[in-house]
Amino acid sequence: MKDHHLDRPAGEPTGPSRRRLLGTAGAAGAAGLVLGAAGGALGASAAAERPPALATVGAGRRPFRGVHQPGIADPAQAHGHLVAFDLAAGAGRKEAAALLRRWSRAAEALMAGEEPPGRLHDTGIALDAGPSSLTVTFGMGRTFFDRTGLAARRPAALEPLPPFSSDALDPGRSDGDLWIQIGADDSLVAFHALRALQREAAGTARVRWQMSGFNRSPGATASPRTARNLMGQVDGTNNPRETDEDFEQRVFVPADGDPEWMAGGSYAVVRRIRMLLDDWEREPLAEQEKVIGRRKSDGAPLSGGTETTPVDLAKRTADGDLAVAADAHVRVSAPETNGGAAMLRRSFSYHDGFRDDGAPDAGLLFVAWQADPLRGFVPVQRKLDRGDALSRFIRHEASALFAVPGGAGEGEYVGQRLLEG
Amino acid sequence: MKDHHLDRPAGEPTGPSRRRLLGTAGAAGAAGLVLGAAGGALGASAAAERPPALATVGAGRRPFRGVHQPGIADPAQAHGHLVAFDLAAGAGRKEAAALLRRWSRAAEALMAGEEPPGRLHDTGIALDAGPSSLTVTFGMGRTFFDRTGLAARRPAALEPLPPFSSDALDPGRSDGDLWIQIGADDSLVAFHALRALQREAAGTARVRWQMSGFNRSPGATASPRTARNLMGQVDGTNNPRETDEDFEQRVFVPADGDPEWMAGGSYAVVRRIRMLLDDWEREPLAEQEKVIGRRKSDGAPLSGGTETTPVDLAKRTADGDLAVAADAHVRVSAPETNGGAAMLRRSFSYHDGFRDDGAPDAGLLFVAWQADPLRGFVPVQRKLDRGDALSRFIRHEASALFAVPGGAGEGEYVGQRLLEG
Ligand code: HEM
Ligand code: HEM
Repeated sequence: MKDHHLDRPAGEPTGPSRRRLLGTAGAAGAAGLVLGAAGGALGASAAAERPPALATVGAGRRPFRGVHQPGIADPAQAHGHLVAFDLAAGAGRKEAAALLRRWSRAAEALMAGEEPPGRLHDTGIALDAGPSSLTVTFGMGRTFFDRTGLAARRPAALEPLPPFSSDALDPGRSDGDLWIQIGADDSLVAFHALRALQREAAGTARVRWQMSGFNRSPGATASPRTARNLMGQVDGTNNPRETDEDFEQRVFVPADGDPEWMAGGSYAVVRRIRMLLDDWEREPLAEQEKVIGRRKSDGAPLSGGTETTPVDLAKRTADGDLAVAADAHVRVSAPETNGGAAMLRRSFSYHDGFRDDGAPDAGLLFVAWQADPLRGFVPVQRKLDRGDALSRFIRHEASALFAVPGGAGEGEYVGQRLLEG
Repeated sequence: MKDHHLDRPAGEPTGPSRRRLLGTAGAAGAAGLVLGAAGGALGASAAAERPPALATVGAGRRPFRGVHQPGIADPAQAHGHLVAFDLAAGAGRKEAAALLRRWSRAAEALMAGEEPPGRLHDTGIALDAGPSSLTVTFGMGRTFFDRTGLAARRPAALEPLPPFSSDALDPGRSDGDLWIQIGADDSLVAFHALRALQREAAGTARVRWQMSGFNRSPGATASPRTARNLMGQVDGTNNPRETDEDFEQRVFVPADGDPEWMAGGSYAVVRRIRMLLDDWEREPLAEQEKVIGRRKSDGAPLSGGTETTPVDLAKRTADGDLAVAADAHVRVSAPETNGGAAMLRRSFSYHDGFRDDGAPDAGLLFVAWQADPLRGFVPVQRKLDRGDALSRFIRHEASALFAVPGGAGEGEYVGQRLLEG
């Protein structure tokens, strides 16, 4: 059986794998192997003569290396896993550095549609599929710096988030030494990455919590659209856009930022926010729209126009009422109301079955990215906590804040500037 | 705000909705409305001049009405929900009939990409998307017949499944009076259907258990492929195919079947089977392949050939060993070994986070369809229970058996022949 064996001694370089061929099939002339199309297998020779174009979903490939880590400025994928790890007893700076080196190597291979290197044999779960826009993003929580003797290099921005009056947080599903965000447009590719990265952690770090979420499938709508959440709202319209002049400045720590090792990095606020869907869905449509300040059908502001028309917070109706109510979510969260505070929301919906009360355990795995939580999430959530009409319909159930270092340069691993700096 | 109001008095006929337009955009000449493509909204007039072709994933549409219910012979979708209901105290035959009528009406609308009729306003979760190959399938468990005074019409095939020695079943996640299987290639379309159907049940039936699963996204592979499961195996190769002469006979109750109201119906065996992935992944590849009797890379039988080559159970290696081991899963489960017993496996993978022991709570929502469980699942599982090499790596954690009536004819609802016959 040796001829078809996938086993590979640890450390032996990976030959061009099936998945690598598939992963680059978008490039002109690349040959892909077809190993058994439904209804009739093709031999390798036949396949070489008819290289298939990898369908769009599988072909999507995002770069691992760069100034920033992937999974931040690029669009959220159809499937996401958020997983926090705690370092094992006895694991310190050295072990953490080795782990981040292994993780970076695995992430780079996985994002290229290749098997992760260095282990006896791959699980094979992602075989046949292309990279499917996989991204892997690494972050460190506040506790990481104590455990690794690096407290002196901990960013001031990692101060614990303040408590909010509406919080109902589960500590077991909050915080964590290390964090990985995985996103992909195929569920098996995402699960494959999760397993591969968990295996690399064995002995060094154990899973503290893990949550899975989703967004619309590519191709489900007639053209690319702003996402909807499980309340049925168009969600993401007024996000900072990569084309905005101040996008980099809002989302990423500058090259001369503080601490130095966070240059090109960002801070991720993760909140598991359950939606009280039974209550929400009983609300008449007009009330639902008032709560947000936007139309449900197309996301247009209640002050008029279409989805992308700027919200006119001063606009009044013929009756003299504010068109966008005083407690409407988009008013209370807008930069204008918060001294310019803004963040990039890149969330996944979640649905973990039903609760004992018959309501679905569902909502938003809210992930907000910013250069500084004190000029992003914190002031906005403070304001929302006091006066957001949406509060009646949601519960914040878990919370975490992570420092997400800049992207790995050539030959570097994520976090190297912290761990070896 | 009346002009954009989605509210609609109960019972008023639905006008051609946005989603209906989208849903039929595959048909030549149908015009779709674009309500805010990312990066710049188009007015309705501009859109009318440039009708977008609904992307393939969203455009998929399966018929609700027919001899058989949908969601059985058609390919499994990327997202699935299995949900069991128990009738509320006091709900009997009349209420069950009214519920199945409401459910059928809702399912037909949802599968056409329309809003479900008859409620104040829709949740809007599926707005923008096409039907995305949504299917909704209804079934009845053994207890349904007692609760509705229909014990005399209960099919003999609904006898409880026998206990198996390897069972570790959770009664709270097993059985149920009623069952719905939902599948769609978009996660929001699937969740939307689940919520809409749950709302129709309010007051009549409450959720007993609910599980969610997934399969590969359409387009993630270079060409349509047999699915893989979370053990990394090609799974589904030797399923009965619609083109097989005996497909109908194996999977569906014949037109003159017993009981009469089950004509065109089928029996669904649902098993939640957890995979012990930590144990499995430690196994060398050659061992993994021996356990199944097929190659992991491409699903080809160990007796030789490619994925679709028939398994040669008699074949021996040069050493005189059986090429497909005596306890290999494909030998023990094959029709040849089981007096011809066969079923259509149409499963979803599941992954519900991590367990306390650090292993993922993941595996197969195994759904097997057959005309008679005693000539399908039962004898095969009896045999597997005694001698399947795979048993070491899996745990059956929940079990249910449902009678799934034939499809609804014009003007009929699913189950009408039972409830009004
Ligand atoms: C389940 C909880 C939440 C839901 C359902 C929700 C929903 C929405 C919706 C529908 C919009 C309007 C469309 C858009 O511009 O994206 C919006 C805007 C926004 N939300 Fe939320 N949101 C939630 C939680 C939060 C939280 C926790 C924050 C931050 C603390 C936040 C910050 C914002 C911001 C900054 C905007 C843009 C406001 C503007 O500039 O117009 N949201 N949200
Ligand atoms: C997690 C549990 C299971 C896994 C991972 C699994 C996996 C597989 C795989 C990889 C194959 C070979 C490819 C194919 O023909 O589809 C297969 C075949 C098959 N399995 Fe399973 N299986 C599981 C449980 C079951 C159960 C519970 C039954 C029925 C009681 C079953 C019945 C069959 C049958 C009938 C075949 C086709 C055999 C043939 O005709 O060649 N499997 N399974």
